[in-house]
Amino acid sequence: MRIILIGYGVVGQGLTNILLRRRLENLKEYGFNPKIVAIVDRGGAAINPKGLNLEKMLALKKRNGTVAADREFGHAQMSPLAAIESVEAEVMIEATSTNVKNGEPGLSHIKTAFKTGKHVVTTNKGPLALALPALMELADYNKVYLRFSGTVGGGTPVLELAKKCLAGDKIVAIRGILNGTTNYILTEMAEKRITFQQALDSTQKLGYAETDPSMDVDGIDPACKVVIMANWIMNKKLTLKDIKVKGIRDVTLQALEEAAKRGNTIKLIGSIDDSAKVAPTEISKHNPLCVSGVLNAVTFVSEFAGEETIIGRGAGGMETASAVLRDLLDIRHNLASKMLT
Amino acid sequence: MRIILIGYGVVGQGLTNILLRRRLENLKEYGFNPKIVAIVDRGGAAINPKGLNLEKMLALKKRNGTVAADREFGHAQMSPLAAIESVEAEVMIEATSTNVKNGEPGLSHIKTAFKTGKHVVTTNKGPLALALPALMELADYNKVYLRFSGTVGGGTPVLELAKKCLAGDKIVAIRGILNGTTNYILTEMAEKRITFQQALDSTQKLGYAETDPSMDVDGIDPACKVVIMANWIMNKKLTLKDIKVKGIRDVTLQALEEAAKRGNTIKLIGSIDDSAKVAPTEISKHNPLCVSGVLNAVTFVSEFAGEETIIGRGAGGMETASAVLRDLLDIRHNLASKMLT
Repeated sequence: MRIILIGYGVVGQGLTNILLRRRLENLKEYGFNPKIVAIVDRGGAAINPKGLNLEKMLALKKRNGTVAADREFGHAQMSPLAAIESVEAEVMIEATSTNVKNGEPGLSHIKTAFKTGKHVVTTNKGPLALALPALMELADYNKVYLRFSGTVGGGTPVLELAKKCLAGDKIVAIRGILNGTTNYILTEMAEKRITFQQALDSTQKLGYAETDPSMDVDGIDPACKVVIMANWIMNKKLTLKDIKVKGIRDVTLQALEEAAKRGNTIKLIGSIDDSAKVAPTEISKHNPLCVSGVLNAVTFVSEFAGEETIIGRGAGGMETASAVLRDLLDIRHNLASKMLT
Repeated sequence: MRIILIGYGVVGQGLTNILLRRRLENLKEYGFNPKIVAIVDRGGAAINPKGLNLEKMLALKKRNGTVAADREFGHAQMSPLAAIESVEAEVMIEATSTNVKNGEPGLSHIKTAFKTGKHVVTTNKGPLALALPALMELADYNKVYLRFSGTVGGGTPVLELAKKCLAGDKIVAIRGILNGTTNYILTEMAEKRITFQQALDSTQKLGYAETDPSMDVDGIDPACKVVIMANWIMNKKLTLKDIKVKGIRDVTLQALEEAAKRGNTIKLIGSIDDSAKVAPTEISKHNPLCVSGVLNAVTFVSEFAGEETIIGRGAGGMETASAVLRDLLDIRHNLASKMLT
């Protein structure tokens, strides 16, 4: 399997790290020996049809800031689209940053990969939040796979649990804490009895929240994840504009303390049943969803198996990279089954 | 797929209920239309090679106490072994009660099914706890599948999460609350400030604990589940005698109250890392494992994806029956892939 990796930040570098470590161990157990034939970052591309030396790529990125600095295989200024169009590969991994205004440049990367017959694994939520129903159709039309396990729950296999482990049952509703930053802020407010602004400030100092915290605190990031789960798990054709979204800016310390008196607390919950929304919601402290700090938690309400909750870290480069590896294995498994037919 | 169902208690009846309801809906989505050709209970058997009428079986069981009362297809006194040997079928479902002394009669049912070339789905923990490494070998030798999702976590897909959703990663440790009854007792003791004996009495009155509560409170039931996870998920060749087991009889209210002062509580934890054991363990109330009441929870510690916890109801007829259905679908899926090779 030949892979083009677009975006070489924490997730991309995490993936190359995992592949290096696994190569030494048991990746061959899976009969799976992927080659990264191109990496593109903001400085340009490194391309080697025989497979790039991943140790060298990590070192170059660290020392020079771009893999394009490679003397033998570097192409300074080469664009992602040019690489996707010109390099032969089976899979394109899209690991650039999320943009929910127009999904670019990730959206064009994905469409171009489809047009050139490449399967896509993306950790970028923007294109999915804006256009998942259309992208799923486009993938079908081009007879390629689109996978995105790392977009919900980081390394925690939220999407796979629902798709692969609840076969025969029917998921009738989903509820989840889908954003670690806002959960950390709400936990800090409740435990240290501080205001939203105080908690946001300390969270930013710790590096958990971006300088522009809007994606998190206004609920946009969890809304993207609601879109992805609604389409993938519950077959609802929704995009970001269909989700009612309310963030946590208006959650007061007073409201948290009143909830506590009732044995409850307030969490930012994304939910899908008849409608799909994100809103601060009072839940019991005994509810398995009620996790602290940067954890994510998702409850699936299924017809026969009852309620199942999965909890794990929602983010992190290595965690999300492990989800990319699972997606690659899944694509490989599907291709192998198809070749048999 | 033709199925012989041995044992027609809550799980067996739950399964026939699910099949009836699914038949009306979307089971055909999976291209899956199982026929139950024999049911055996304590009164004898009902056998119809064309498939039994499940509504009638449920009604007979309710009214007459045994499916052998069927005028056309009933065989009073027919033994499970005779049915397994004489009835043609692809799968035997073993849903009799757990016996950890010698695993019987379930163990003989499973071995006989293997010898006659039948795949086995079991919800009976006894044979697995005593002989899982040998049974896995025997299944391989006879080229049949052995599945047992319902033995750990009831309807909660604990085993599948580890096997199917963490591909590419490595599970290095497992910790879990694996028994709802003891968790309910410990929760009651801590919340109502009562002794073990008082909590046990009220739990028995509610019907959560058996009259002989030893399987639960002495930790034998969770130890069986530790054996199953150690073999299936972590490839350790263990049986019940290899597990260090301590139950909750000696957990005092005082110990719970002292743990509470430290922000902790005491739970009966089954764990697998270098060793495998079951013991009352002090854990933080913030630990995602720390669930209340009859819930089960299992944390997988994986190399790259971090810690993932799954929480759900650990028991219940419909829940466990939903796990049997998943196992049947899994066997069918594997057979379909194999036919292609």
